[in-house]
Amino acid sequence: MKTFEVNLERIKSDILTLASIGRHTDDHGIYRMAFTDADMEGKRWLEDRFHDAGLSHQRDGAANVSTQIDGSSDLPRILVGSHIDTVPCAGALDGTLGVIVGLECLRCLQEAGVSVRRTIELVAFSDEEGRFGGMFGSQSVCGQINPEKLATLTDMNGVKLQDELRRHGLDPMAALDAARDPESIHGYLELHIEQGPVLDRLKKPVGIVDEITGLFTWAVRLKGEANHAGTTPMDMRNDAFMGLADFAHEIPRILEENGSDRSRATIGKAQILPGATNTVPGLVEFSLDVRDTSETILEELSVAFRKALSAIARRRNLMFEFELKSYLAPVQCSATMVDALKTQSTRLNLDAHAMPSGAAHDAQIMGRMVPVGMIFVPSKGGQSHSPAEWTAWSDIAAGANLMLHTLIELAN
Amino acid sequence: MKTFEVNLERIKSDILTLASIGRHTDDHGIYRMAFTDADMEGKRWLEDRFHDAGLSHQRDGAANVSTQIDGSSDLPRILVGSHIDTVPCAGALDGTLGVIVGLECLRCLQEAGVSVRRTIELVAFSDEEGRFGGMFGSQSVCGQINPEKLATLTDMNGVKLQDELRRHGLDPMAALDAARDPESIHGYLELHIEQGPVLDRLKKPVGIVDEITGLFTWAVRLKGEANHAGTTPMDMRNDAFMGLADFAHEIPRILEENGSDRSRATIGKAQILPGATNTVPGLVEFSLDVRDTSETILEELSVAFRKALSAIARRRNLMFEFELKSYLAPVQCSATMVDALKTQSTRLNLDAHAMPSGAAHDAQIMGRMVPVGMIFVPSKGGQSHSPAEWTAWSDIAAGANLMLHTLIELAN
Repeated sequence: MKTFEVNLERIKSDILTLASIGRHTDDHGIYRMAFTDADMEGKRWLEDRFHDAGLSHQRDGAANVSTQIDGSSDLPRILVGSHIDTVPCAGALDGTLGVIVGLECLRCLQEAGVSVRRTIELVAFSDEEGRFGGMFGSQSVCGQINPEKLATLTDMNGVKLQDELRRHGLDPMAALDAARDPESIHGYLELHIEQGPVLDRLKKPVGIVDEITGLFTWAVRLKGEANHAGTTPMDMRNDAFMGLADFAHEIPRILEENGSDRSRATIGKAQILPGATNTVPGLVEFSLDVRDTSETILEELSVAFRKALSAIARRRNLMFEFELKSYLAPVQCSATMVDALKTQSTRLNLDAHAMPSGAAHDAQIMGRMVPVGMIFVPSKGGQSHSPAEWTAWSDIAAGANLMLHTLIELAN
Repeated sequence: MKTFEVNLERIKSDILTLASIGRHTDDHGIYRMAFTDADMEGKRWLEDRFHDAGLSHQRDGAANVSTQIDGSSDLPRILVGSHIDTVPCAGALDGTLGVIVGLECLRCLQEAGVSVRRTIELVAFSDEEGRFGGMFGSQSVCGQINPEKLATLTDMNGVKLQDELRRHGLDPMAALDAARDPESIHGYLELHIEQGPVLDRLKKPVGIVDEITGLFTWAVRLKGEANHAGTTPMDMRNDAFMGLADFAHEIPRILEENGSDRSRATIGKAQILPGATNTVPGLVEFSLDVRDTSETILEELSVAFRKALSAIARRRNLMFEFELKSYLAPVQCSATMVDALKTQSTRLNLDAHAMPSGAAHDAQIMGRMVPVGMIFVPSKGGQSHSPAEWTAWSDIAAGANLMLHTLIELAN
């Protein structure tokens, strides 16, 4: 007997067709940023696919697009989804893949007339990527949007979210009505590309996410004294850049002493002033991005980094200050969902890898309200957010079949 | 019997009067960049002071302004000097102090009717600070200017040196005629502010420079791979910034192993790309400025830095390249001149400190052609190239008297 499985050709066709909406011919990148005309065209295209499959379609007040297979009971529903908006110059997969895979699962269930006890609803969330801050759709569903945010959210060019919504004939305040009752939702499942190198290097077809990483970011200033590089002896310097170099050098030790194998710390941005070849730097400003899946470890790392900074500043006679720029708590995936994903991957003979999600996704927002689970598929070379982003079709098929069977298990 | 000494009041008056030429009222900085109207006004002001003192005045083809006390013999002459052009937003001293001190020495000799065997000539060199590359006047005197340089030297705003010279009614090609016969010069003496913190911290009134530091500067590129700061495990990164941090961390070791107490190494400029908080840096470009008074040590440091860079690139899987952006050979001061300075400082009961010059001066150019000696006076707080630049009047008097008596010794 052949296993019940998704139709990969339909997934391919949908991915490639949707990729043409917002694609620029010059750099082959996709520009379907939230609430642009291309994004709205993508939403309409998706609704047309629902219609073609004989499925209903709805839009809530946050312009989240959804469809569903009705269950035979009033039990809380299963949500499956992701997003179709993109960063500028994006690749074809990212959130889009999770939406198309969800659509294919619903199509399969619909065609085969599989009956489910719980309703299964597919949602394509609005503005995950952050044209207006990010996770707008999932935050609306979780009741985390308020009138002040609606009035103030603005993109990098100064366009206000509320003006952009009105331009499309939408009422901004309607986003407040998109909030759902947590009791109505049994859980949320999301398939996403990994956006990292792990599955690709390990040659695993799918990852089962057990935790979604939390993070804090700091903006740090180290202030010394700018001096002449020739006339200032090494032991009479207050070199702010050397303070930064000392700090960077401590990162491996601090992670080894206080972190886990899921800890990451990155200095991604640094400005050195005055920035002349023949001048000892008097000021550096840099970012620190620290992630882990444990809130306790994040706190311990924060203490250790603060101590290191303070000791270096004392040793090099620098002043330091830092500002917490963002904090996002880690989210544990639901044991029920992780178990269902593991059971189904064993049944489908998939060599699945248990792993954390290092990036934030709609599942991180949803995970504060309802049980969540995530499937990762490999990113070739770890690349994402670029036209080079890709995943083998065979891995996409594996991830989609895992989603299909997990949905059936959870919905019954 | 009172020692023959300079008139400090005249030095004060000259310094403060010349400081008003090119001074901006908003930031109190002096803007007398080479061949600006303010610089040319400074040259005329200086010639008027020569005239007031009953001294002749000459300008050579490079617009170097000079005057002299004629010696009783045809023996090669002594040059004394510095420059009166400034960086933008300068303080009152820098090169100006050496010119005014030289003027005061000649005034004293003239007034007292002191007879000298060798002619003593005071020169205020053009464009030491580098509006058009730097050391233009002393390079002209040393025959290091050629027609190609004259045609191509350009300032930061794209103004050509030759156009600027013509604007003042000068013939650019005349700079080629400023070259002197080395046989005609017995030696060159320059008094300058230290532009570093050493004399100020040691509370010494004067420094006697024994060596002028040489330097090389590199532009270095380390290329790794930009990746997501959350999804890329620490051991799967090719973090270009961490390569730079490793390299900076090696500086003290490399100086200890290969350098002298006169070695300096500075990373003054660095650009981190793409430069986002949540992205592992894929590329860094930075400058390395390395100085020492020994050519051999500079070569050994260059080898050691290259090895360190190469090892770090291998360890972190980065590509590296570096370009030699400049090289300036160190210059030994003349033993005769250093001895004369030491003898006179002992006689004047000055607690002089033997030290290198970490910055380049006209003496570095002149030192390739003729014997040179330099006197340093302390820079308060090590500051220079800013309106905060200052030296106590008592230290200025000490340095000026040392110059006066050394000139008399060397000229007889």
